[in-house]
Amino acid sequence: MAPNTKLTSETRAKLKTVSTATISTALFKRGFRNQMIQDVHALDPAKPTMVGEAFTLRYIPAREDLNPLSVFQDRAHPQRKAVEECPPDAVFVIDSRKDARAASAGSILVTRLAKRGVAGIVTDGGFRDAAEISRLDIPSFHNRPSAPTNLTCHQALDINVPIGCGDAPVWPGDVIVGDTDGVIVIPADLADDIANEAVEMTAFEDFVTEKVNEGRSILGLYPATDPQTNVDFAAWRKANGR
Amino acid sequence: MAPNTKLTSETRAKLKTVSTATISTALFKRGFRNQMIQDVHALDPAKPTMVGEAFTLRYIPAREDLNPLSVFQDRAHPQRKAVEECPPDAVFVIDSRKDARAASAGSILVTRLAKRGVAGIVTDGGFRDAAEISRLDIPSFHNRPSAPTNLTCHQALDINVPIGCGDAPVWPGDVIVGDTDGVIVIPADLADDIANEAVEMTAFEDFVTEKVNEGRSILGLYPATDPQTNVDFAAWRKANGR
Amino acid sequence: MAPNTKLTSETRAKLKTVSTATISTALFKRGFRNQMIQDVHALDPAKPTMVGEAFTLRYIPAREDLNPLSVFQDRAHPQRKAVEECPPDAVFVIDSRKDARAASAGSILVTRLAKRGVAGIVTDGGFRDAAEISRLDIPSFHNRPSAPTNLTCHQALDINVPIGCGDAPVWPGDVIVGDTDGVIVIPADLADDIANEAVEMTAFEDFVTEKVNEGRSILGLYPATDPQTNVDFAAWRKANGR
Amino acid sequence: MAPNTKLTSETRAKLKTVSTATISTALFKRGFRNQMIQDVHALDPAKPTMVGEAFTLRYIPAREDLNPLSVFQDRAHPQRKAVEECPPDAVFVIDSRKDARAASAGSILVTRLAKRGVAGIVTDGGFRDAAEISRLDIPSFHNRPSAPTNLTCHQALDINVPIGCGDAPVWPGDVIVGDTDGVIVIPADLADDIANEAVEMTAFEDFVTEKVNEGRSILGLYPATDPQTNVDFAAWRKANGR
Amino acid sequence: MAPNTKLTSETRAKLKTVSTATISTALFKRGFRNQMIQDVHALDPAKPTMVGEAFTLRYIPAREDLNPLSVFQDRAHPQRKAVEECPPDAVFVIDSRKDARAASAGSILVTRLAKRGVAGIVTDGGFRDAAEISRLDIPSFHNRPSAPTNLTCHQALDINVPIGCGDAPVWPGDVIVGDTDGVIVIPADLADDIANEAVEMTAFEDFVTEKVNEGRSILGLYPATDPQTNVDFAAWRKANGR
Amino acid sequence: MAPNTKLTSETRAKLKTVSTATISTALFKRGFRNQMIQDVHALDPAKPTMVGEAFTLRYIPAREDLNPLSVFQDRAHPQRKAVEECPPDAVFVIDSRKDARAASAGSILVTRLAKRGVAGIVTDGGFRDAAEISRLDIPSFHNRPSAPTNLTCHQALDINVPIGCGDAPVWPGDVIVGDTDGVIVIPADLADDIANEAVEMTAFEDFVTEKVNEGRSILGLYPATDPQTNVDFAAWRKANGR
Repeated sequence: MAPNTKLTSETRAKLKTVSTATISTALFKRGFRNQMIQDVHALDPAKPTMVGEAFTLRYIPAREDLNPLSVFQDRAHPQRKAVEECPPDAVFVIDSRKDARAASAGSILVTRLAKRGVAGIVTDGGFRDAAEISRLDIPSFHNRPSAPTNLTCHQALDINVPIGCGDAPVWPGDVIVGDTDGVIVIPADLADDIANEAVEMTAFEDFVTEKVNEGRSILGLYPATDPQTNVDFAAWRKANGR
Repeated sequence: MAPNTKLTSETRAKLKTVSTATISTALFKRGFRNQMIQDVHALDPAKPTMVGEAFTLRYIPAREDLNPLSVFQDRAHPQRKAVEECPPDAVFVIDSRKDARAASAGSILVTRLAKRGVAGIVTDGGFRDAAEISRLDIPSFHNRPSAPTNLTCHQALDINVPIGCGDAPVWPGDVIVGDTDGVIVIPADLADDIANEAVEMTAFEDFVTEKVNEGRSILGLYPATDPQTNVDFAAWRKANGR
Repeated sequence: MAPNTKLTSETRAKLKTVSTATISTALFKRGFRNQMIQDVHALDPAKPTMVGEAFTLRYIPAREDLNPLSVFQDRAHPQRKAVEECPPDAVFVIDSRKDARAASAGSILVTRLAKRGVAGIVTDGGFRDAAEISRLDIPSFHNRPSAPTNLTCHQALDINVPIGCGDAPVWPGDVIVGDTDGVIVIPADLADDIANEAVEMTAFEDFVTEKVNEGRSILGLYPATDPQTNVDFAAWRKANGR
Repeated sequence: MAPNTKLTSETRAKLKTVSTATISTALFKRGFRNQMIQDVHALDPAKPTMVGEAFTLRYIPAREDLNPLSVFQDRAHPQRKAVEECPPDAVFVIDSRKDARAASAGSILVTRLAKRGVAGIVTDGGFRDAAEISRLDIPSFHNRPSAPTNLTCHQALDINVPIGCGDAPVWPGDVIVGDTDGVIVIPADLADDIANEAVEMTAFEDFVTEKVNEGRSILGLYPATDPQTNVDFAAWRKANGR
Repeated sequence: MAPNTKLTSETRAKLKTVSTATISTALFKRGFRNQMIQDVHALDPAKPTMVGEAFTLRYIPAREDLNPLSVFQDRAHPQRKAVEECPPDAVFVIDSRKDARAASAGSILVTRLAKRGVAGIVTDGGFRDAAEISRLDIPSFHNRPSAPTNLTCHQALDINVPIGCGDAPVWPGDVIVGDTDGVIVIPADLADDIANEAVEMTAFEDFVTEKVNEGRSILGLYPATDPQTNVDFAAWRKANGR
Repeated sequence: MAPNTKLTSETRAKLKTVSTATISTALFKRGFRNQMIQDVHALDPAKPTMVGEAFTLRYIPAREDLNPLSVFQDRAHPQRKAVEECPPDAVFVIDSRKDARAASAGSILVTRLAKRGVAGIVTDGGFRDAAEISRLDIPSFHNRPSAPTNLTCHQALDINVPIGCGDAPVWPGDVIVGDTDGVIVIPADLADDIANEAVEMTAFEDFVTEKVNEGRSILGLYPATDPQTNVDFAAWRKANGR
């Protein structure tokens, strides 16, 4: 189940300049309709766009006898192990079964991820110490703050297996992009294509936005059904070096 | 189905000075209990109060064969057409069936609405490019950000028909008011009455707030069951020119 | 149903320095898994931690004939009475049955509570005038803003009885703590113990955070399974006076 | 809070012959829109219509330390006490906060209620031993079967206080009617009026149904805007002794 | 918006012999993933399969002043008008916005539809008089019984326009099929193709079921990746005249 | 992750005579509160109690490109493989993430399981061909019927790993019991103890039911706080051979 491709620095750089909205349209063109992790948002909307390959952690519902606080004394506990094993530049994605009644993780673990150079963290549940996490130097996304310790509801089980997160499929190595609209999952082998197309689309959208701000109607402009639009866009690209 | 009345500039001006909370109480007195569009909020809470007549757009669930990206090449596509036809000073209200899994609209369309002088935009779904929309010079309200293109879930169908939005009935021409508490729908023929009553109520509430801040109990003051309250209020109005 | 203990000023002071996350872990150790009021958040996340004994108000669904606006002319109406009777330094907790379709309270009542020295207010529904409430000098927590008058959905019934709030049990006199992660309920007779333990835990967590920020792995450190961790923590406490 | 009226045997008999649908329309005419207990159904749809005055039991979320199995050894435990105190011919209504994750009651308690001549039992949660309860000689209504003991989620607290049940207000003494469409709450002082009107409406609806089955259009017939309809109805009543 | 095709009696007959499950697979092959009306079920599971072209009715949230009981005195009221205008052999589909808090229709109207030869009725809300409706000679599908009159929540607005029903798009003239698994919507121009393919698939599934009942493994059999399976199926078809 | 114990035929036989309600109480005594698979029910309530060791199948959200119909041509596809590998007498438990928008399985696969002697099947989603499945000689439990092919929403991934099902943790080898109240999960190493205790509890509950049917109050009887109850129970056991 290892992905066939690796996220190149070029593609990573391109994806940092485009939006999840644009990416979702590029995926839609290719028949993908469910790649958005539903109903998560950035703890700090001012952070730059998050980009990285998915490194996953799977939770199942916690059984009381298997989840006393003492489980964390085991260095092999999957949650703690995953935090130490997640590759730098990866995005740590947790399948919390959309259950935010208990925390998926707290500020100490996320601080460790940030120190280790991890590119971001996402859960379809909630983080505790959310205010502190929002101030860390790592983009983070969740559904809502949740103080109770994860053992209350969640048992960490598997590291880096395919999971569901917010109703989206997440395979290890998929490219995860997060911004103020939320988090999207790009299948690993499409990342380069999607990045290229999204950069092109973004240039056109920036051009369109400028024209709309100048008072132009969207009809004929967006999409470019009026031939003049393509002429103007070519000129705009030259003028703006894009 | 055309409304019997037009929103006057006097009523518009009055409604800009009162809150959706006060309006909801005035509507409650007249037997209206379901005029609040449930569970939407302002993308930018710092914007002034939104007021305008409803201009509506109805979405139904998208059928895949009818909703390729190419549909937007049709200038008569209802979403694009509606954006160009919505009257200045109206509020653009979208029935997204409370489904925020895909976007109701994005920043380019909302920019166009802003340029055209539209008074605001509301969906009971979500917007993509939400951060950009929040910075535009137009009040906007939704449930949550949502990046996927609207074609993923929504097919634009009807322009300016009665719709449901957030469990509230919205008839074209109804007066829509939005503030930091959310968005409320005033039946068109009641707008003048409600505006007048809400201005009066607001004066009284401002007086009461001042008295409570001075340490007065709410008993007898709010509501004014103590005759002295009315005496004091009359004096306060004179002193404050209200 | 009066609690057996009173919240001391020492315990109150300690609880103001710890987080709901830390408290939830201390409660978890003692077998409590459902003390977090689910899905409420601070209207103003910048406010200091809220601490106080619970003073409760119970709502039931409103019956139309029993809830015209005129009910507030009765000085004994439970909502208004409760606002005047809630002890200073208590936290006013409202059982709104997780129904935010109508307001639990508005800015005038919350202003009165603030003036009376009440320590905070919580509802599992929503407040109207939410922006004004967020600016008052009292911490407040709800699910979402909601403009409609409470009579639309809620009838105030009982003062200071045990209630459910956000799926948590709240007994009068329980100690309520609220911060940016939400609101937690400490059974009254455990407040001193929990406060003491949470202060200790917080010292350790602060030490751990410092070490993680210095680049240490969490393995062996958190929890302190490596004996060196305890040595280092003892030194840290001495050095930092904690 | 004792109701002003008592359910007479005449009214009880009348209500046994009408449907909750007809009653809901009679209540709607008087301005009541929320008297249906939402989303509960009969465990045995073949039972006759349930009619009786509400006797209520209020649950709050269970706190673990207060709800070991041993609590039932206290004869004053509200759940057990309520089962012994519920008057014959009353309907036992439980406020389970719409939470069916644990049982509201099981077959032994419902058997006891049946033996004591209680007229029915309703919860907005779920019953355990549901198949056995469905076979008892007492109408019962819930949301869905639920095996876990009630102590898992629910703490019985108050007997015969006003409650919410399935989003409807239930005051002790209100008249509860349940059939295959669900359960409705008639305010105590309206029971006689509603029963009379519902009997009349039922006669008309039976007449209409007969005519529709004979092939008549509903236009002019239902409602009786065609004068001939009233003539025909008068003849039908005479012919059918109603 | 009139459909391009008419449901032929041949296609109708074929569709009566296949299941919604089989149809959904045939639609899936053609790229349709959202044609199932979610979360509705047959009131009487013993009825034969429902087949007919969609005739739609659209509800919006009811505004109190527009929806007194007296509205039904207007012969042009869309709900009553639609019941008289729905073509025989069509399926009457109601967009109730998945809101079952009030009825979509009751037994008198459904009796009239049955008498008029209508092929079935579907709502994504609920019916009142559900037990009576289940006994009528017309297949009916809803989410759950609901006694309150439709005016409580619903205002009938449009007849035979495209609607959403249970998150599926329904265009007038689409072919609606309902069985014990629920209700599916076949785009009008695909009905013949889908019917033909589903009949073929059903023959194969019947063959497979027979073989599985004889003890055969599903591997190689379903799907028919083992060449012997196709040989056996050909023989089975000949032997069984299918 | 292999369970430490095997379900003996004695324990299996005992569990077939007790209810999930009784088992849930025995688990509650041992500190287990979340072992009930929430919100599933028997397709055929007349079937005997289902008992067997869990054999699990894990689904994640389906990605379109990985889930064309042709995937089933791979004999190693986890869904088909699992159906052939599930041990006789085991219970096949599917983690469908509580998503019933598409089927978890259909009648052909369940027929194969029945033929192979599997003891039952459970999903927290829904089955297609539900009416046929209910008639098969195997107990089956789901949330609701769902016709769309599983590939629409689900990708089968892992066989016999720990999963969540209806918010309960299910470990391979756990003992699954299902009856008309639903499905419960007994941790493997507790099965013998729970079975023994549940048999004892059932005897007492049968005795209590008999006494209640004879008119006895539950006070002192249930639980047996009156010493006479224990005397009577001892006599009853002797008389009834239990």
